[in-house]
Amino acid sequence: MIHVGVNGYGTIGKRVADAVAAQPDMTVSGVAKTRPNYEAEAAVRRGYDLYAAIEDRADAFADAGLEVAGDLDALVEASDIVVDCCPSDIGAKNRPVYEDHDTPAVFQGGEGADVADVSFNARSNFEDARDADYVRVVSCNTTALSRVIAPLEEEYGIEKVRVTLVRRSGDPSETGRGPVNDVLPDPVSIPSHHGPDVNTIFPDVDIDTLALKAPTTLMHTHSLNVTLAAEPDEDAILDLLADESRVFTIPETADIDGAGKLKDYALDAGRPRGDLWENCVWAESVGMEGPDLYLFQNVHQESDVIPENVDAIRAMVTDVDAAESVERTNEALGVGL
Amino acid sequence: MIHVGVNGYGTIGKRVADAVAAQPDMTVSGVAKTRPNYEAEAAVRRGYDLYAAIEDRADAFADAGLEVAGDLDALVEASDIVVDCCPSDIGAKNRPVYEDHDTPAVFQGGEGADVADVSFNARSNFEDARDADYVRVVSCNTTALSRVIAPLEEEYGIEKVRVTLVRRSGDPSETGRGPVNDVLPDPVSIPSHHGPDVNTIFPDVDIDTLALKAPTTLMHTHSLNVTLAAEPDEDAILDLLADESRVFTIPETADIDGAGKLKDYALDAGRPRGDLWENCVWAESVGMEGPDLYLFQNVHQESDVIPENVDAIRAMVTDVDAAESVERTNEALGVGL
Amino acid sequence: MIHVGVNGYGTIGKRVADAVAAQPDMTVSGVAKTRPNYEAEAAVRRGYDLYAAIEDRADAFADAGLEVAGDLDALVEASDIVVDCCPSDIGAKNRPVYEDHDTPAVFQGGEGADVADVSFNARSNFEDARDADYVRVVSCNTTALSRVIAPLEEEYGIEKVRVTLVRRSGDPSETGRGPVNDVLPDPVSIPSHHGPDVNTIFPDVDIDTLALKAPTTLMHTHSLNVTLAAEPDEDAILDLLADESRVFTIPETADIDGAGKLKDYALDAGRPRGDLWENCVWAESVGMEGPDLYLFQNVHQESDVIPENVDAIRAMVTDVDAAESVERTNEALGVGL
Amino acid sequence: MIHVGVNGYGTIGKRVADAVAAQPDMTVSGVAKTRPNYEAEAAVRRGYDLYAAIEDRADAFADAGLEVAGDLDALVEASDIVVDCCPSDIGAKNRPVYEDHDTPAVFQGGEGADVADVSFNARSNFEDARDADYVRVVSCNTTALSRVIAPLEEEYGIEKVRVTLVRRSGDPSETGRGPVNDVLPDPVSIPSHHGPDVNTIFPDVDIDTLALKAPTTLMHTHSLNVTLAAEPDEDAILDLLADESRVFTIPETADIDGAGKLKDYALDAGRPRGDLWENCVWAESVGMEGPDLYLFQNVHQESDVIPENVDAIRAMVTDVDAAESVERTNEALGVGL
Ligand SMILES: NC(=O)c1ccc[n+]([C@@H]2O[C@H](COP(=O)([O-])OP(=O)(O)OC[C@H]3O[C@@H](n4cnc5c(N)ncnc54)[C@H](O)[C@@H]3O)[C@@H](O)[C@H]2O)c1
Ligand SMILES: NC(=O)c1ccc[n+]([C@@H]2O[C@H](COP(=O)([O-])OP(=O)(O)OC[C@H]3O[C@@H](n4cnc5c(N)ncnc54)[C@H](O)[C@@H]3O)[C@@H](O)[C@H]2O)c1
Ligand SMILES: NC(=O)c1ccc[n+]([C@@H]2O[C@H](COP(=O)([O-])OP(=O)(O)OC[C@H]3O[C@@H](n4cnc5c(N)ncnc54)[C@H](O)[C@@H]3O)[C@@H](O)[C@H]2O)c1
Ligand SMILES: NC(=O)c1ccc[n+]([C@@H]2O[C@H](COP(=O)([O-])OP(=O)(O)OC[C@H]3O[C@@H](n4cnc5c(N)ncnc54)[C@H](O)[C@@H]3O)[C@@H](O)[C@H]2O)c1
Repeated sequence: MIHVGVNGYGTIGKRVADAVAAQPDMTVSGVAKTRPNYEAEAAVRRGYDLYAAIEDRADAFADAGLEVAGDLDALVEASDIVVDCCPSDIGAKNRPVYEDHDTPAVFQGGEGADVADVSFNARSNFEDARDADYVRVVSCNTTALSRVIAPLEEEYGIEKVRVTLVRRSGDPSETGRGPVNDVLPDPVSIPSHHGPDVNTIFPDVDIDTLALKAPTTLMHTHSLNVTLAAEPDEDAILDLLADESRVFTIPETADIDGAGKLKDYALDAGRPRGDLWENCVWAESVGMEGPDLYLFQNVHQESDVIPENVDAIRAMVTDVDAAESVERTNEALGVGL
Repeated sequence: MIHVGVNGYGTIGKRVADAVAAQPDMTVSGVAKTRPNYEAEAAVRRGYDLYAAIEDRADAFADAGLEVAGDLDALVEASDIVVDCCPSDIGAKNRPVYEDHDTPAVFQGGEGADVADVSFNARSNFEDARDADYVRVVSCNTTALSRVIAPLEEEYGIEKVRVTLVRRSGDPSETGRGPVNDVLPDPVSIPSHHGPDVNTIFPDVDIDTLALKAPTTLMHTHSLNVTLAAEPDEDAILDLLADESRVFTIPETADIDGAGKLKDYALDAGRPRGDLWENCVWAESVGMEGPDLYLFQNVHQESDVIPENVDAIRAMVTDVDAAESVERTNEALGVGL
Repeated sequence: MIHVGVNGYGTIGKRVADAVAAQPDMTVSGVAKTRPNYEAEAAVRRGYDLYAAIEDRADAFADAGLEVAGDLDALVEASDIVVDCCPSDIGAKNRPVYEDHDTPAVFQGGEGADVADVSFNARSNFEDARDADYVRVVSCNTTALSRVIAPLEEEYGIEKVRVTLVRRSGDPSETGRGPVNDVLPDPVSIPSHHGPDVNTIFPDVDIDTLALKAPTTLMHTHSLNVTLAAEPDEDAILDLLADESRVFTIPETADIDGAGKLKDYALDAGRPRGDLWENCVWAESVGMEGPDLYLFQNVHQESDVIPENVDAIRAMVTDVDAAESVERTNEALGVGL
Repeated sequence: MIHVGVNGYGTIGKRVADAVAAQPDMTVSGVAKTRPNYEAEAAVRRGYDLYAAIEDRADAFADAGLEVAGDLDALVEASDIVVDCCPSDIGAKNRPVYEDHDTPAVFQGGEGADVADVSFNARSNFEDARDADYVRVVSCNTTALSRVIAPLEEEYGIEKVRVTLVRRSGDPSETGRGPVNDVLPDPVSIPSHHGPDVNTIFPDVDIDTLALKAPTTLMHTHSLNVTLAAEPDEDAILDLLADESRVFTIPETADIDGAGKLKDYALDAGRPRGDLWENCVWAESVGMEGPDLYLFQNVHQESDVIPENVDAIRAMVTDVDAAESVERTNEALGVGL
């Protein structure tokens, strides 16, 4: 049984905790939080031991009637491995704590690539994380791009990837984020940092990315163009994607036009939190023009990296291989629609 | 075992089906749908028998690989009672079908009050529906207003109710609905029809309502003023609401600022579809100025009427009393946060 | 000729400058800005002398090719009166500079009431600002409320005012502001500060206000209830409002359903920046229930305070009376639709 | 003096009328409208003769106090040329009326290409419309694409164009349009019809387009990739665009992050209705990766086609050449920022 501590219990952290708890070979040693808000109360309700991430706020938890099991040191001590799900750049500040305890740690995509020895995507480079002490699961967007680039590269070879990412402006709970009535180039300079991030997984893929921010909360949308080294037809592409366990191809009959209906479908399907761990590719959108593949995919920013975190743990502290880990993770979570 | 048919399997219908399936004394005899979209597929996945609501579209279901158990007549025949969850005004057109089969039916709030003999809210007038053949569960907004009006009226007496309803413009899956960047008086003439709808439950309460439509999808927000016949203090009001099983008082420590975090909390709490069956009243907002009570409450339009539908069924076809029914419904669903 | 300096050239400041420039008895001595952005460039294009509000950023203006006439001291020195249009609370920090120069100043509604001796609304208390050195024009919302409260109080007497303010979350250019898909109680505690702000103009009016923030950018919407000391009919109210030069009653035939069409109409009518200096009251919404008046009004936050700033200047440094000043301001701007 | 009739006085029609009225060689013979709403009232206010587009609604105008000069036949009779600005597909239905009167007509981009003999963009194919009887000004998006494709094709040659269009969901006044919180592939099948529409102007350019609909109202955003036949550097591209009179390159110092600030700048610059007749290209976004040019541009859907309509008129009924016409139009409107 791998004892996994989760430091930072927000959008990503709470999902990582639940995903870990669902694995037959893992257990949650505890979760660390800074403030006793509704998420902290719900963590206790779910039975997770709650640790106070920032020492001098322990009183605040007591005032809210929430019992605290200890501080961050105590959580790391109780854990074989920590998944750090703190806001961007806090992970890097936390790394010395994990080093002090000789405890391996998984970081998230908000950190710079240099926070860890390895940037990770289960489909693409699982073995690179084997026995590594520090691994970064790449961001939601990079994860999703990796999942389609990997099979295309393997099957046909890739000349060039061009992506326009229309990003959601904030998660549903992030009410302070705008814009309200605008689509913002973000960053305005092209190409965006997403391309280089993909290169941490695929060093040799030629990729240019452009990013925009739109006033929505549910999912990111990718407008994808891949110039292939071959000219397969659309059905071949659809067959290829159908074989990918973390890609969901939206059938035309489903009559799903966007993120609202996709999330509704996830809830209908009984998914916890309506999570969509898979890339969601519109089957109708898959088009070939000569060697140029085009498609639209939606990415559930809050959850697509969750199975990747679970696999990263297995790559780091077990000898389970990629295929077996991915299958176990998928099975335990219920990946596949 | 009460065999309940659900005609119209959309936002409300699918929730009614799940709620019925969760009751110890009820079972879903089948659900009728017009089109084989993602919701139909998910209905089959949940194990509900699927009926084709519109006969000549049965082929479309076959094409989508969905087996159909029969037509609407067959569903009504297989049911002790039908819950009609079709779009506004379709329910009234369906009533003759139910009459033909001598089958009682529950209608939703989108229908005119005259679709049924009784307009229903479990907290307020459960017994009025006793043995009735046709009952209308009032709309999401009227349901929520009834739940706070009932205890205030009983405890203090009400001089006047004034409400501004800031309605969500469409459910998350209703992507065709606007506005995008506007708040619209809707209707522009005052008072709105919501007041008279409340009077179908409380004929003697003096109430004026004003309604607006805002570009959001998650919940309605009520800005409520009740001039009481007494002058209790705020703590007395909070105590009164705490006793209501279908009112959730949002504590200050939860740090919940709006619908995004409320829904996130519901998902954290493991609620199916993130449903919030309860009125959500901000504790901090409860204010008394002389005899004037003010408060903000949020209403999850997709789900607050669901427990009411279950109770309406019991009022109509069993002799279970109000308190017992509400308790059974709450228990089976998990109402109460 | 009154030489008016404008310190803070943003949403309000640029409109104040244009309005001052349009008056026959006033001229713009210069405008002070902190950064050489598009607004600064446009100020120069309009022929205003540009001053660097923050001394050590003068270089930045030079780099952007914008000539600077001096610093804030120089602007104050060149002005008979300054209108401070800096962000909330900066005005209070600037006051000592104006005092040093013995220069009177007008502040905006983002400042606390104690920034000035008098809070001002031209319709309601013009003479209170006579010869005052420091005057605060109340906020956009308070200005709009004052304009309807004044005639109602004079004509019928007011028992009680209750308002729900559904505020736009940010101006069109404020792209950092959320929420994207939420309506937030703001403040969540009731009543909001808007009521007390109205009492700086009408100390004796009994008013309770509740405020929400919605994901729109164009205008605020007020859901207004006034319990009158009389029971006039709706036509009497419409006649009363028709006499108010800064209230526009939207006729039913115009087919205007919200802020989008209102702004479009303002642009059609040739209004600079599409500004709506008037309260916009939907004629159809005016309803009487006994002594209770209800109505919806929209408020163009960016511009309704502009004519008030002009009148405040006249109250402070001329002996022109209220009626004459308002008429001059209206005439010069083109108030009245 | 060319007498120009405008049939359909909505978003496009009212701008066409104003642009025509501003030309030294044209005059507005009248405008036809179906309903006496705020736009009709404003047309009268601007001094345009109002015609009732649909005969039996003439009474409605009378009821609204608006005098009508005649019916559609009368307007066509009074005109040398008609600009049809009716909603999509109505133009095609109107064409027989223009034919009956032997009156040439300009149609808008909502019509199919076959409504007219020629699809038109002033920069790209002015002479094709010379003496033509029926000309279609291409859509806002195609117009904007043409303006950047033309110089790139002329200067460097184009191998391939790929564009993701993130479209605004509706104009500010179109409050019925959604989505509220979603980005929708629209159309979901790739490539979209925009590419073929560009080919009506540039038959030989290889272009693939993908279109999305976002919950905004102000402008469209294009994420553009052009693979050139050469490898110029970024400065060369910026110089090339700087020479285009209907392309505005947004300088970095302006600090403009999106459509909100762009429109605010247009209003600051005194533009009527805040119109941006030019493509708005972010200078910082212009990037070259080998032969691949990338850039972001914003398109003001309500106004970028307006100068094109004016030029189309000159191409059709005068012998003024392209350069002269564009210069006259630009001068009269004030194109160029
Ligand atoms: N939300 C997404 O869409 C998303 C997607 C993929 C990756 N990520 C990445 O995941 C990481 C976490 O993002 P998130 O969205 O979950 O953020 P979040 O803000 O929802 O959660 C972060 C949590 O960490 C807590 N926290 C803050 N400082 C802390 C500290 N010093 N110690 C412990 N806890 C602390 C916060 O209270 C909060 O509960 C970031 O690197 C982010 O870039 C986020
Ligand atoms: N969505 C809400 O927020 C909400 C809240 C409270 C009450 N209601 C009321 O509930 C009712 C249903 O609303 P909804 O939001 O679930 O609508 P919906 O559109 O989500 O679902 C209606 C379903 O009925 C199906 N349908 C249409 N015509 C049919 C027919 N002739 N026979 C059978 N099925 C048919 C549709 O395909 C759809 O699946 C309405 O009266 C509505 O006013 C809705
Ligand atoms: N925007 C509205 O809707 C609105 C409505 C009514 C009243 N107000 C009030 O008007 C005031 C100004 O608001 P705004 O919306 O125009 O803000 P804004 O941010 O649009 O403009 C403020 C300007 O002041 C400049 N500035 C900042 N610090 C400065 C300094 N130290 N010296 C000089 N200039 C400085 C900024 O660069 C900016 O140009 C505030 O009190 C606000 O509450 C705003
Ligand atoms: N709005 C845009 O963003 C935009 C941009 C470029 C091109 N276009 C195209 O311009 C055309 C007009 O679009 P719009 O946005 O101005 O539409 P609109 O709806 O704003 O205006 C159309 C006007 O035509 C009137 N009308 C309707 N039927 C009529 C009839 N039979 N006879 C006369 N008038 C009639 C309507 O009342 C309305 O005033 C369409 O082809 C559209 O695709 C629109």
